[in-house]
Formats: sequence, structure tokens, C-alpha cells
Amino acid sequence: MVKKYVFGDPIDTGAVIGDISPCTEELCLLTQEKDEEGRLRFLLSLDDSDIVYGLGEAPRGINKRGHIYESFNSDDPYHTEEKRSLYGSHNFLIISGKSCFGLFVDTGASVTFDIGYTDYDRLVICPSENDLVIYTIEGESPLDIVKQLRKITGSSYIAPRWAFGFQQSRWSYFTADDVRRVAEGYRKNDIPLDAVYLDIDYMEGYKDFTVSEERFPEFKSFVSEMRDMGIRLVPIIDAGVKIEDGYDIYEEGKEKGFFCRRKDGSFFAAGVWPGRTHFPDFLDPEAREWFGSKYKVLLDAGIEGFWNDMNEPAMFYTDEGISEAAEYLKSFDFSCNDPNKFFELSGTAGGLNNRRKDYAAIYHNIKGRSVCHSRVHNLYGFNMTRAASEAFEKLSPDRRVLIFSRSSYIGMHRFGGIWTGDNQSWWSHILLNIKMMPSLNMCGFLYSGADIGGFGTNCTRDLLLRWLAFGIFTPLMRDHSAFGTRAQECYSFGDTAAFKGLISLRYRLIPYLYSEYMKACLHDDMMIKPLGFEFSDDEMARRTEDQLLIGESIMVAPIYEQNAAGRYVYLPEDMRLIIFKNASVERSELLSKGIHYLHAALDEVPVFIRKGKLLPLFRAVQCTDELDTSEPELLSYNSEPCSYLLYEDDGISKAADLPENYRTLSI
Amino acid sequence: MVKKYVFGDPIDTGAVIGDISPCTEELCLLTQEKDEEGRLRFLLSLDDSDIVYGLGEAPRGINKRGHIYESFNSDDPYHTEEKRSLYGSHNFLIISGKSCFGLFVDTGASVTFDIGYTDYDRLVICPSENDLVIYTIEGESPLDIVKQLRKITGSSYIAPRWAFGFQQSRWSYFTADDVRRVAEGYRKNDIPLDAVYLDIDYMEGYKDFTVSEERFPEFKSFVSEMRDMGIRLVPIIDAGVKIEDGYDIYEEGKEKGFFCRRKDGSFFAAGVWPGRTHFPDFLDPEAREWFGSKYKVLLDAGIEGFWNDMNEPAMFYTDEGISEAAEYLKSFDFSCNDPNKFFELSGTAGGLNNRRKDYAAIYHNIKGRSVCHSRVHNLYGFNMTRAASEAFEKLSPDRRVLIFSRSSYIGMHRFGGIWTGDNQSWWSHILLNIKMMPSLNMCGFLYSGADIGGFGTNCTRDLLLRWLAFGIFTPLMRDHSAFGTRAQECYSFGDTAAFKGLISLRYRLIPYLYSEYMKACLHDDMMIKPLGFEFSDDEMARRTEDQLLIGESIMVAPIYEQNAAGRYVYLPEDMRLIIFKNASVERSELLSKGIHYLHAALDEVPVFIRKGKLLPLFRAVQCTDELDTSEPELLSYNSEPCSYLLYEDDGISKAADLPENYRTLSI
Repeated sequence: MVKKYVFGDPIDTGAVIGDISPCTEELCLLTQEKDEEGRLRFLLSLDDSDIVYGLGEAPRGINKRGHIYESFNSDDPYHTEEKRSLYGSHNFLIISGKSCFGLFVDTGASVTFDIGYTDYDRLVICPSENDLVIYTIEGESPLDIVKQLRKITGSSYIAPRWAFGFQQSRWSYFTADDVRRVAEGYRKNDIPLDAVYLDIDYMEGYKDFTVSEERFPEFKSFVSEMRDMGIRLVPIIDAGVKIEDGYDIYEEGKEKGFFCRRKDGSFFAAGVWPGRTHFPDFLDPEAREWFGSKYKVLLDAGIEGFWNDMNEPAMFYTDEGISEAAEYLKSFDFSCNDPNKFFELSGTAGGLNNRRKDYAAIYHNIKGRSVCHSRVHNLYGFNMTRAASEAFEKLSPDRRVLIFSRSSYIGMHRFGGIWTGDNQSWWSHILLNIKMMPSLNMCGFLYSGADIGGFGTNCTRDLLLRWLAFGIFTPLMRDHSAFGTRAQECYSFGDTAAFKGLISLRYRLIPYLYSEYMKACLHDDMMIKPLGFEFSDDEMARRTEDQLLIGESIMVAPIYEQNAAGRYVYLPEDMRLIIFKNASVERSELLSKGIHYLHAALDEVPVFIRKGKLLPLFRAVQCTDELDTSEPELLSYNSEPCSYLLYEDDGISKAADLPENYRTLSI
Repeated sequence: MVKKYVFGDPIDTGAVIGDISPCTEELCLLTQEKDEEGRLRFLLSLDDSDIVYGLGEAPRGINKRGHIYESFNSDDPYHTEEKRSLYGSHNFLIISGKSCFGLFVDTGASVTFDIGYTDYDRLVICPSENDLVIYTIEGESPLDIVKQLRKITGSSYIAPRWAFGFQQSRWSYFTADDVRRVAEGYRKNDIPLDAVYLDIDYMEGYKDFTVSEERFPEFKSFVSEMRDMGIRLVPIIDAGVKIEDGYDIYEEGKEKGFFCRRKDGSFFAAGVWPGRTHFPDFLDPEAREWFGSKYKVLLDAGIEGFWNDMNEPAMFYTDEGISEAAEYLKSFDFSCNDPNKFFELSGTAGGLNNRRKDYAAIYHNIKGRSVCHSRVHNLYGFNMTRAASEAFEKLSPDRRVLIFSRSSYIGMHRFGGIWTGDNQSWWSHILLNIKMMPSLNMCGFLYSGADIGGFGTNCTRDLLLRWLAFGIFTPLMRDHSAFGTRAQECYSFGDTAAFKGLISLRYRLIPYLYSEYMKACLHDDMMIKPLGFEFSDDEMARRTEDQLLIGESIMVAPIYEQNAAGRYVYLPEDMRLIIFKNASVERSELLSKGIHYLHAALDEVPVFIRKGKLLPLFRAVQCTDELDTSEPELLSYNSEPCSYLLYEDDGISKAADLPENYRTLSI
């Protein structure tokens, strides 16, 4: 049961659809108080047995206890343990243990969640402003609560099926020839591939909706050339619009007043990749419609997918920041002999980016009211992606378009997916990827994944292989890496057989993964679940943070430690272990409920098939266009009769939950 | 068998003692070649079964394969996975698998070790200069190779027994009253404590060998007051000597020419905590003797232990760096609109510290020759600690003095211990601590430990408890935290019972830990070993990175994940699991060789007793002064007769391996 509690005069975030009448009685699941400065705080005692799920894109565990988080969409690529904020804000928690209920703290402003950090037995929620809505959701299980949240926030965005193909990205493939080399690198080595990403350098001077004529001549025919190889190009779109006289988007936005402003009414400016930019006011429906319509030029060139980036929004510098820094540096006494002064110097010169002060100087036009950005900061990326998604409804009414975003808020899950931003080539980030996936699913972000191999720092062959072996099971399976790092394509580490085997297995699994994904989308369910969601009475299962249920048939236990021959695994029920190698079953074993050590080499992928469930496998192909689901190989726990309901559609038309899209596979 | 290979004209590092004749035949265990620039490189093919042990203080695993490391002593507190350098350089590797041999690359200059990073099957050693010595050590086992290394580099420094007591530190306890509050906090809560650390703020203006009269009045009597409570004070000594007219150390060093110089002969200056400092030229024996003699003033005040810090040496800024930055900033065009310029600005202003360029501008006096610091960089901290240690031989000929250092090189293990530097309050840093301990032991650093609870960022109660539960088994057991972080003393998180239980257990174990430590010191052995060192034919044991053998009787399997009820553990042989709680046996279980899941609450400490071995426990006390070893409680695998040889001495006189120091405990 969902209850809505309204505090103050909140700005509608757009997260919740439909009308829910506010409760008139007092909030009873949480204790409410005001701190010394009059700010609302909400408190809850936690029982030792309570697990706190949620927060979507956030650092640390599936169980969020023991840390303090701040919902404040942040462009910060160093996802170390102590971080409080990542790119998205997903203010949804489930308390599961002695009690069982959910909380959705609905506000575009920042919120702090002290989940047993100050005091292990206490949850304290501190919104940064007193205007907000809290939804409490009582349910019979965490999954039931997730479904209820989805009911009020709307069903998840549905990606085209080709977006389940393997995708290769890098900041940047600078020219069409660079992209051709990537396509050839994959095709030549028989490693399947469905898409190559265009990072910021495909643009002319980093101007949104332009393509460099010099580096990508005859873009439309290039798109088509790649498409003929079964490869889609996926260009990036950044939030900031370059300030440049004569640049149509800039000129139009300025003329129509569609950019965010300063308090004095002038357009707010911040330096991003193109230099100084204005930020479209995505919170204004008219500006949204205008910006969304601009995707047309790329759709017309044959583009079928996009990634929206830098939309926290990320700012490298502002006029205000620069002039403060210049003033400071001008008067800096370089003859001084105080280390603290030099720390301050480096802090000032290095602290020009993403200043809270600058965010607070941005103003939006919300229904004619000028609203300070701080109040709606976490909604910006959401509404950029909404702009694109709403435009696609018109520009591509019959065909799905791939769209995912870096910054997000609950509600955006209706409009697009997310990737988990600029991670690092760290083994611990495989684990972070594992832990984040179910949390994202809880918040409605079903089409999601991490930068496989790690974005920043250098990847090694073994890291990439182990990460891919998990990425096989995430809807977005994309290898992405940063400028200046070691080449990270699957053919960049010598012998490609292991890579071919892993990615071919992905393609053999796509019909199953897509089926499970679509069922989760269509039934407001989760595709990727923590063990505790299904085995809630099993304490070992509840505490397992590094194994996941992928759809109804399988459990995975990815290996995320370097030089490990395998890993420990806990089976909450009897399962069949299948070890895949070269995309085929290499060996298989019935394992009983309990603890096991799982051996798997770098070129092997372990999958656990659940009792009574079927895993269908299909022919390996080079791209999703070639998928053929006519002759499934059916893997099962044992030979007892069982069946699997496969959802299938053409993968590109707008999806509908039609009976003819289901096919029963049985043994 | 040790073989010495000399290349070029190496500078004696002081790591190896005694004369070893160089081999005339060619290096055969490694392939030797020169790169395009004429630099020597040494290559080795690695077999799939090979584990590469070693490198002492370094990031990542016990098995160093799959990463690239650079020996270049670095003041960098963010020990994330991709880092190549930490504070110490310990150029010792053991290849163990198909082959079994050790390598000690003896040079004070930087060396890169590509251990299966570029190519998983290849080790490439790239010294930065062609003047070096390589020792190859063939042996029958990794432990045998470790012992052979110790034979040529000398026996390890021996700490006083009180340094096995629990120690509390913080940057900083600013006043004597702050220290009194810490002492009272422990004593009042019956949490044992042996030492409180004085970080930089005890000094007058950060001047070495001064004590602030204002904040620590009547220091000698304060030392004695604390000593009466069973608590030693351990002051920090930094490498840099403040440039201040009238400051005796500065004036003397200047007059005697004992500071490092620039190429032009002027004294090199760098800003550190006191502002501009000169660096004593610790590579000059006379300067070493002079600086070492200065510890007397603190010894005379009753001080019995020191930590040498900032001796990479850390530099916040130099005159040269500042003037370059000032020049750059002066001409910086703040009206520019190029993000790369602003990245450069922030890099310049934020990159004043620890510049390689500045290191290359330092010159040492080595036997009358002016030698560029780059050639001996990794020897600086070593020789600072050598200065102290050699002085203590004279100033305290009969009593051991506690001394440990941040920066180090192999050879320094004869003169002092090390702590592992400025880590973070990260769960992953418990694991890093676990993995680093055996590697440090391999290189001779037996008195060692990490900042428990983490130095930087904020600690939580559960993190501190889990970390302490491992720290119980490391010789240095010190809680240390940084300025600006959450209070981290054991009484800072409310209920202190769990802390009291853990630290009391430490004291019950000290006689055993000290005995095992002393045996390792006296017999050139390791106190803390990876499982693979004892169970070399057991592939599971060889691949286990998170369990350790502590002395001859026990194995530990620390819990290092938040919200975990326990962890998986692999037993390479039958063992008895003891769960300690409140410093007593809470429960006990015989476990068979193989895989188990170990449950342990935050206030519990699991210990595995090996078959045929005894673990003696003694009475819990409040400080090591009160230790009483007369009535051991003897824990064993089962009731079959077995014995333990306890090494005991007065813990403070210079140690000797005398028969009367051994006592057999039997059941």
C-alpha cells in the first residue's frame, strides 16, 4: 500500500505519474523532527536483522547499511568507497528484515541518507529543503514493494533488441577510419559486435547535433556502410550548447529563451568540452520539446541510438568561478612560506569544476516561475533524456530508439536507460557493477550496465575477460575506455579466442536475456535480483552480495579477483553448474544447496541453472540482425519435464504485451 | 644459492651486508637486453602456474601478477588499485611455480616491474639506470629464498615488547590535555593501551626535536605522568629541517654542510609542514650521525619510541616549482575559453608537490661525490631511519628503542620497522593490509602494521571493529586517523564492550605474538606467511590471498566486508576454529580440511589452531607492563600431547637468542 505525505510546497519532480491523494494522517513509519536550523529530518530505528536495499546508482553494497549517501548528481569519476554521490539520484529505500516497507523521498533537491553510518542502528534522512513528498510503500516482500513503486512511477523504458548486442566504445574514435578499424577488428576476429560509439570527438567543435565533415565525411553513407556490416553507430549528446555565433542551436535557444539563466535573467554560462556553453532548460516543457526535436538530424542520418552525457550538468568552469580564481591568484603571495596557502592555491585552481555555488546560481523556468537549480538539481539529466525520449515518440513513432543517460532520477526510467558513468579499470569495480545492477533494477532502471573493462586507468587482459564474463548478463554490454588509456577493444590483447568465446556466448543468450528483460519491462518486475529477493528466509542468501539472479532461470557468481582460479559460491537451492567455454557447454555438474568453490578459467563462464527452470541457448551469430531463435538448445537442472516461456518480438517495433509474443519451450 | 651480478658502476645501497663476489658468468635466470634508448631490461617468461611473490609495500595481491609497479618512494595517500608506487621500494621478487627463485634488484634509483601487465606471461624489469646489482637466489622453497635474502641483507630490527601493546594515534592530539583525554578514555573504559602518538603538532612550529612549550608544558614530567599510567608517548620526526634563523638544528646543519644541495652547491629547499626546509643528507654518514644525535633530547625526556615521517622525502613545493607556477599563472589568460587550458591550470597549481623534476634537482654527498638524488631516491627514508637507529646504539646501548618509518628500502629492515602509510577508512584497505603483511615479512620488515581504521576519510564503528580484529595479529597495532576525519579512538563509537574485548584479546595473545615475532627476527624467518609458503602443493592454499599464517600455531581469516555475517574460509588441513568474544573462548569447533563458511559477529575474533600446535593465552591486562606469563591457558587442536616453545625476554634489553629465553609449554 502506497501512502503519500506532502511536506511544504514541493516542486513536482515528474517521478510519479497519476494522482495520488496525500495522506492527512501523520507519517507513522518514520519519526519526524526538525533540527536546530528548522530542517526536517526523518528517523528510523533499524533492527539487527534489517537489510536496507535501494538507492539505485550508489557506491558500496546491495545492503546500503553502514554508510552515508547524498543524493546529488555528481560528475566524479573516482568511485572509491567513501564517496557519497554518483551521477544519479534514486531516493528509494527498502527496509527488509524485522519490518518490510519502502520509502521514496521525492524531491529534486539533495537529500542525505545516513544509513547506520553515524549510528549503525539508525537511519536518518535529511532533505536539504523542507518541500518534498515522501511515499511509504508497505508490501509483503521487497519485490512487491519494487512493483508498487513501479506502478506509481510508471513502467520502464524499453530498448531495442539490438542494444543487447555487444557494443564497443572509446573516448574517442576520432575518425570514420578509426571506427572502420574497430568494426574490422571485430569482424576479422569473428567477435560479434552490434554497435560502435561515437564519443565527443565526432562533433564539429563539440557542438551538439553536428558531425565533423572533415573526420566523418558523408556521415549518412558512413552510417549506412556500418549498418551493412550489422553495426550501429551511437553518438553522444552533451547537455551544454556551445556559445558560438551562427551555430543554429545556440542562436535558436538564445532567441527563444530556452537556456537556463542567472538570477538577473541573463543566460547562465559554463565551460564544458566546447568551451563556454549554455544549458538548455530541460525543466521547461517547451525547451525540452525544442531540444528533443534536434535529435532528428541524426535520426535522419540513420542513427538509431544515443547516449546523453555531462547532464548532471557537469561544469568545468564558470565565468564567476574564473573571475574569483583570477582575483585570488592575482593577489596570491608566491613568496609566502605557508603550506596551507599552497594547499588553498591548488584547491582554488583545481576546484573550478562542479562548484555547488555555481549550481546555486542557475535558474530554471518552471511554469513561469524562476526556480533555483539547487531545488531541482537532480532532475536535470532526467529531463534531458525525457526531451530526447518524448521527441522520439514523434520522430520515430513506430521504432524504438536506444537512449541512455549518465545523470538520472527516478522517473527517468520511463524515458531511457542509464550507464553507471566513468568507472575505473579496477577489479573492485567489477564488484561494484555486480552490486549496483539489482539496485538499479529496484528503481526501474532495467536497461543498464557499466563501462566494461573500466573507463579510466589501464585495463589488463584478465580484467577485461572477467568483467566481460559478468557483462554477458547485463542488458547494456559495452566496453568503454578513456582517452589516454591502454587500448581496450577485445582484439587489443593478443589472442582473441577467449574474447570470441565470451561474446559469442552473450549472443547465444540474447534471446533469453531479452525475454527476461522484456518481461521485467512489461510486468513492472526486476530482471536482475539479489538472492535475498527470492530466498528471503535464507540468511546466507540474504547476506550474499556478489551473486545475482538473472531472470527466472539462472544465477551467476562472477569472478572479480585477479589471479583467482575461481571463487566461493553459495547455492540457496540445488542447481546445475554449467561452465561455458568457446560459447559451448564445457562441463556441467549438479550441485547441492550450500557452499562450493567454483573453478573457472579466464575463458570460462559459469552459470547456475535453477531447479525446474530452463535456459534456452541459440545459435551464435555476429550481430543481433542474424539472431535465429528457431532451434534452441535447452539446458536444464535435470531431465525432468519443465518449460520456459520465451518472449519474442521483432525487437524494434514499439513493444506490447501480446500473447503471440510468447512461446513455450519445453523438455 | 645467491649470485650477484653487477651492471655498470652501481652506488652501494647499503642493502646487502658483507662481501659477495660478483658472478663473472652471464645472468642466466633472466634474459637481458637493451631497449632503443640503450636502457637495460630483464625479461622472464612466466608459466601459468607461477605465482610472483614480493615487492613488500605495494598495492594489490600477495601474488603480484597482472600489474605494473614502479619502485619510487611516493607520498601518495590514495592507495587505489592502479597505483604503481607507495612509500617504500622493496625490489625483491620470488617466482614460485614451475621454477622457484628470487630476484633482488639492488639500486636506489627507480625500477619498473611489469609483472604480466603488458603480457600476462612475461615479467619485464626496467631499471631507470644501467648501474645496478641483481642478486638471484635459488632455493628449495619461497621461505628458503626469503631466508637467504635475509642472510645477505641482515637480520631484522627488533622492537621492544611494549610496542606490541595497542597504540592510539591521531593527526593530531594538539595538547597534553588532548593526550590525557585519550589516556583516560582508554583507562576509564578498561580498554588496554600502551602508547599515544604525537603527530606534527606537538612541535614548536613543526621544528624537529622541539616540543611546544605552550601546548606540552613541562614535557618531561608529562612523559613521566603518562608512563605512570603505563602509556608511552611516541613523537613523530619529519625529514625536513625548518629554515629559521636561530633554530639550532638548522644553524648547525647549515654550518656543517649537512643538508642536500642543488647542483650549484646551494642548499636545496622545499616546503613541507614547517614551510621551507632543508633536507639532511642522510646518505652522508657524518650527516646521519649528526641528525641521529638529535634524538637525544627526546630520549632524555623519557621518550622510548619514534616514527620517522615525510622521508620519501615528501615536498609540498619548491622555490623552483613556485616560480614556474607563478610565471605560468601570471601569464594565464583567464579570458580563454579552452577547457584544456583550465585543466592545465589546475594541474599546474595542484602539481607543486613531489615533482620528479624537483627530486632530480637534489644532490647528495656520497663519499665526496655529488650524486643526483634520482639515483638514490629510494634510499632516503632508509638512511633517515638508519641515522636514528645508529644513534640509538650509542644513546641507548642497553635498551631497545621503537623506531619505524614511512619511507623505506630493503636494508632498512635492519634499522627499524615501517607502517604502511596514509591509507583510507576503506574496507578494501583491510584487505590490502592483509595482503601486504606477508609481502613485508618476505622483505625483512617484521615490525609493521597499517593505520587501523584507516587514516584518511571517515571510519565507522563496524569498520574499526573488523580492522582491529585483524590488527590483533600484526606486530604494530595502531589506530591512526587524519585531521578533519571522524574521531576514531575505540571509545568514540558509543558502546565500548566490543572494543575492550578485541583489544584485551590482543593482550592475551601478546606473549605468543611476541614470541613468534622474536623467533622470526632471531632466525631470519617470517612471522606472517601466505598459506602457499607452508602448503605449496595445495593449489587452493597457494591461491588464497585473504588468509594468513601467524606464527607456527594459528591461521587467521579476517572478515573485511561490511554487513557480512562472516566469510568463506579454506582450511589446508584440519584445524580447530576458536571464536573469541570478550577475550575468551566463546565457542570452538573442529573443522576438516576444505571449504567452510565462518560466522563471526563484530565483537568476535575467529582463530584457527593448527593440528599438533598449541596457542598459549595469558591474562588480559591494561598494558604490557602488567603482562604476566606465569599461567598460560593452552588451546590446541585436540587433546593429544603437543608443545609450544615460548620465547620470552624482558622485552627491552637488546635481544639475544639465549637458551634461557625459551620455555616449553605442553599439554
